[in-house]
Amino acid sequence: MDSLSLLGITIGILALVGGNWLEGGQLETLLDGPALIIVFGGTVGAVLLQTPGQVFLRALKLLRHVFLPPEYPRADRIKRTVSWAEAARQGGLLGLENLVGRERDPFVKKGLQLLVDGNEPEDIRRMLELELDSHEQRSMQAAKVFESMGGYSPTIGIIGAVMGLIQVMQNLAEPSMLGSGIATAFVSTIYGVGMANLMLLPMANKIKAHVMDESEYREMMIEGLVAISEGENPRLIEIRLRGFL
Amino acid sequence: MDSLSLLGITIGILALVGGNWLEGGQLETLLDGPALIIVFGGTVGAVLLQTPGQVFLRALKLLRHVFLPPEYPRADRIKRTVSWAEAARQGGLLGLENLVGRERDPFVKKGLQLLVDGNEPEDIRRMLELELDSHEQRSMQAAKVFESMGGYSPTIGIIGAVMGLIQVMQNLAEPSMLGSGIATAFVSTIYGVGMANLMLLPMANKIKAHVMDESEYREMMIEGLVAISEGENPRLIEIRLRGFL
Amino acid sequence: MDSLSLLGITIGILALVGGNWLEGGQLETLLDGPALIIVFGGTVGAVLLQTPGQVFLRALKLLRHVFLPPEYPRADRIKRTVSWAEAARQGGLLGLENLVGRERDPFVKKGLQLLVDGNEPEDIRRMLELELDSHEQRSMQAAKVFESMGGYSPTIGIIGAVMGLIQVMQNLAEPSMLGSGIATAFVSTIYGVGMANLMLLPMANKIKAHVMDESEYREMMIEGLVAISEGENPRLIEIRLRGFL
Amino acid sequence: MDSLSLLGITIGILALVGGNWLEGGQLETLLDGPALIIVFGGTVGAVLLQTPGQVFLRALKLLRHVFLPPEYPRADRIKRTVSWAEAARQGGLLGLENLVGRERDPFVKKGLQLLVDGNEPEDIRRMLELELDSHEQRSMQAAKVFESMGGYSPTIGIIGAVMGLIQVMQNLAEPSMLGSGIATAFVSTIYGVGMANLMLLPMANKIKAHVMDESEYREMMIEGLVAISEGENPRLIEIRLRGFL
Amino acid sequence: MDSLSLLGITIGILALVGGNWLEGGQLETLLDGPALIIVFGGTVGAVLLQTPGQVFLRALKLLRHVFLPPEYPRADRIKRTVSWAEAARQGGLLGLENLVGRERDPFVKKGLQLLVDGNEPEDIRRMLELELDSHEQRSMQAAKVFESMGGYSPTIGIIGAVMGLIQVMQNLAEPSMLGSGIATAFVSTIYGVGMANLMLLPMANKIKAHVMDESEYREMMIEGLVAISEGENPRLIEIRLRGFL
Repeated sequence: MDSLSLLGITIGILALVGGNWLEGGQLETLLDGPALIIVFGGTVGAVLLQTPGQVFLRALKLLRHVFLPPEYPRADRIKRTVSWAEAARQGGLLGLENLVGRERDPFVKKGLQLLVDGNEPEDIRRMLELELDSHEQRSMQAAKVFESMGGYSPTIGIIGAVMGLIQVMQNLAEPSMLGSGIATAFVSTIYGVGMANLMLLPMANKIKAHVMDESEYREMMIEGLVAISEGENPRLIEIRLRGFL
Repeated sequence: MDSLSLLGITIGILALVGGNWLEGGQLETLLDGPALIIVFGGTVGAVLLQTPGQVFLRALKLLRHVFLPPEYPRADRIKRTVSWAEAARQGGLLGLENLVGRERDPFVKKGLQLLVDGNEPEDIRRMLELELDSHEQRSMQAAKVFESMGGYSPTIGIIGAVMGLIQVMQNLAEPSMLGSGIATAFVSTIYGVGMANLMLLPMANKIKAHVMDESEYREMMIEGLVAISEGENPRLIEIRLRGFL
Repeated sequence: MDSLSLLGITIGILALVGGNWLEGGQLETLLDGPALIIVFGGTVGAVLLQTPGQVFLRALKLLRHVFLPPEYPRADRIKRTVSWAEAARQGGLLGLENLVGRERDPFVKKGLQLLVDGNEPEDIRRMLELELDSHEQRSMQAAKVFESMGGYSPTIGIIGAVMGLIQVMQNLAEPSMLGSGIATAFVSTIYGVGMANLMLLPMANKIKAHVMDESEYREMMIEGLVAISEGENPRLIEIRLRGFL
Repeated sequence: MDSLSLLGITIGILALVGGNWLEGGQLETLLDGPALIIVFGGTVGAVLLQTPGQVFLRALKLLRHVFLPPEYPRADRIKRTVSWAEAARQGGLLGLENLVGRERDPFVKKGLQLLVDGNEPEDIRRMLELELDSHEQRSMQAAKVFESMGGYSPTIGIIGAVMGLIQVMQNLAEPSMLGSGIATAFVSTIYGVGMANLMLLPMANKIKAHVMDESEYREMMIEGLVAISEGENPRLIEIRLRGFL
Repeated sequence: MDSLSLLGITIGILALVGGNWLEGGQLETLLDGPALIIVFGGTVGAVLLQTPGQVFLRALKLLRHVFLPPEYPRADRIKRTVSWAEAARQGGLLGLENLVGRERDPFVKKGLQLLVDGNEPEDIRRMLELELDSHEQRSMQAAKVFESMGGYSPTIGIIGAVMGLIQVMQNLAEPSMLGSGIATAFVSTIYGVGMANLMLLPMANKIKAHVMDESEYREMMIEGLVAISEGENPRLIEIRLRGFL
């Protein structure tokens, strides 16, 4: 559970609503169904038009990471990698064979399999880096779905405000309606800018941070597996991998 | 048929029009011929001045991909590439000769021809990558035509609005005209910002996603063809290409 | 003659003026000498302060390319390069000596001279690429003069508008002057934003497209000349150069 | 103590408050609790949602560097490195062993240890550069926390202003309240834009400058340690390292 | 003396002041001490907080280049380099020894010394490029001080305007004061935007152009000195260096 995420979203919304309340504003004026339809609908529409289907699904899946962050147990992995290196020095690479079946991370499993199959170090590196790059690129593309939404929502909020103002202008003759009309119009701006800055953009950035974290973790695993296949000294492997901590 | 594109554009426009209607706005106030001429004409003018002829034509051709996405059957291609690798191992590269005529993708056809002609692996890679890069660069240039349009249309919408406001200001003496004059002026802004955010920019991004997809597919084919020309083990080729899935 | 450029600039201006006329605006309200002086003078001043002398002259020279595009006859060049490669195979590199005098493109002439002088392939590549890079960088720098102008003109338009508004505010007591004062003030904005979006930025982009085109053409010539100096098969040279079409 | 930082923040705030006072403004109008809650709370909320926990902590730790800058004594380090090189030439790398214990900079200590252990020059370079890159990336990520805050705060200031304006509009009937209502609303904008431009963004940039400085210093140390392990001439090492001054 | 810089700054300011005068504005309305204090003080404060001390000093030193541009006599240098190459061919590298003392450009002097000392070509290149990169990076950092100021000044101008508007709003009851109050408020915007676009940003760009020019000149010198140390043909050196003209 990422309590910082929860805290952040709570503080952000409380600050806005609370500050407004302290200034004497009423919460009801900030609630406006049609404005929500315009801003949310327009933003979702733009992003659906923009995003290929599987990228959109991946984005929805990654959304979970904002509150339930994935874990990459680096310190633990270094320990295990060093023990693999020692095992390989004593029993040869084939001695790692029974580890493949037990490995749960599919990326590491693939690496171990390539190792056990006796591939050349540079082949192992190339294949794993291809996979890492391709996976990272896709995850980033998915994270950018929220970034795009955060780019669209303020401008669509402005469209909502301008549409509202147009209506108001049509009825300039009734000054009593003026104020509340403008008020309603402005709510779209708040929705658009607020949605982007209190939710969409920060979420996109948190997802990106997790993606970078995963890539660094995988990079560490590649270094370790390649070093084992090069028959490097377990102690040196440990020093090198500690650079990732 | 890319149903997400269709859905996106529909949701976007419905949300705006519907939200406005719920707020009591009338659709007619949002329809304004001269504003459309200003925004659409100005945007098209800017982009014609900016774009070389053949890039503009390519952009129009790629527009189709927004609703009719091209397909790059990776899984199927991997299977076929592996079978080519096996055939080449048994019958030599010349055994692939009859495949060249049957191949429909011109990029793969060129690669197969280079393979059958017995070129060096690094020559095959270099020529195909030259073609990939040059093709990708042109497609991106074409996709950017819509991105540029999405950059110009909001500012031209603002020009339209300011021109409208100038007229309104000339007639400040008749307050009855004021509101509807401003309303008309603001419609340009809605057209400019709306066109950019609900159509042009999302379309440019979808086209870009297809271009990147094609390049990745071609990169996979290069990896496969070069690996065949290096006489690599079909099973290893399969593992490597699976990294692109 | 680049008819697209001419068409673009015509459509753009016609759309704005025509749309405004259809909305009942008068052309005269859009004409304002002082506003033009502010926006044009301010923009030119900023760019003169920013740009070294020879870059500014180069920019003025490249401006011509917007309407009279340079031509890079690739298909024709490939044919000729292949024939050079054949001649070199038969008569040696010295057989190309009489071509040097006839060559009109100074870049290709330099390349041919380096070839005839019997330089090493990598030396030819290095010297020509140095020249290509240095030339491209300067042309880009010149193209960016218009991009910069397109960046300055809207903000200077805003300065003009604010200066106009200040005057208006000084005379709030005479409401009859108010409207026309504001109108004049807004014209600066239109000049600034319009100049940038209908002329300066699209022109900068067209010039950039020509610069990129020239570089790609020169890159093709480098590939061809280096391949000749490596004594490569003329047919292979042709295949490789076709990748640039 | 970074007196420039202190001077900068003082001048910035004094200029704003003083200029406003000279224009006849009262300081009290610029103080508004609810506006502060909205802008500060919203900005902190956005950044907490966005930032992984350990990055946030690192950012708070680096904040100290704005006023208490870290020192990287290059000239002194070059002298010491040259003396190490001389010692290594006379007594071999093992002669450096007793230096390891006394070294206080953990990065240099690790480098010395790798040197004394007799690792290959390229291994030393690789491990130290891995550490440098990984450390720099994390510090930059932390510096960007303040950059992000400086990006969020102006937009959240605008949300505050619009919320304030909405309230004002609700009470258009009481013109006496109008002015002071709008005034309160605008204070949010000042807080948002001022916080970003007088504090958050400059601080982020100063932290970044320190991070770059540290990396350059570490790069210098890598060059020196690798050169020692290559047994290079101490005088040449000195010339090379002086390039970093 | 860079007459273009002088011309640019004069044209820019004359255009604004003159255009305003032609529109019937009075110069006095554009002069406002407190606004100047706010904008200039705030901008300087932000930049002092942001910039390390020595970078700020370097920026002040580079400012001089805007009007007194440094000269890099390339054509002359090529001639001299070729004569050095000839001398080195006849009398060996030691024949260049007496040149070192007479050389005035410290960068070239260092290069000549490295050459005379008989260092390896790649060592000479590495050391000189290290120095070039490090020097370019610092000069760019200094040039960016003005770019940053040009980024801060418009937003601080807006803070000044909003502070002015707040005051105006406090006194809505006295409409006679309204106009001139708003006018004063807007002057901050003009100062902020004008300072950035007519001075700070163009100056930053001119300084950057000089930095790039110096780096290209130094790059040319590196090519020449390395070529001499490789004992290359003086004529070939001349052709290669001419690529930099």
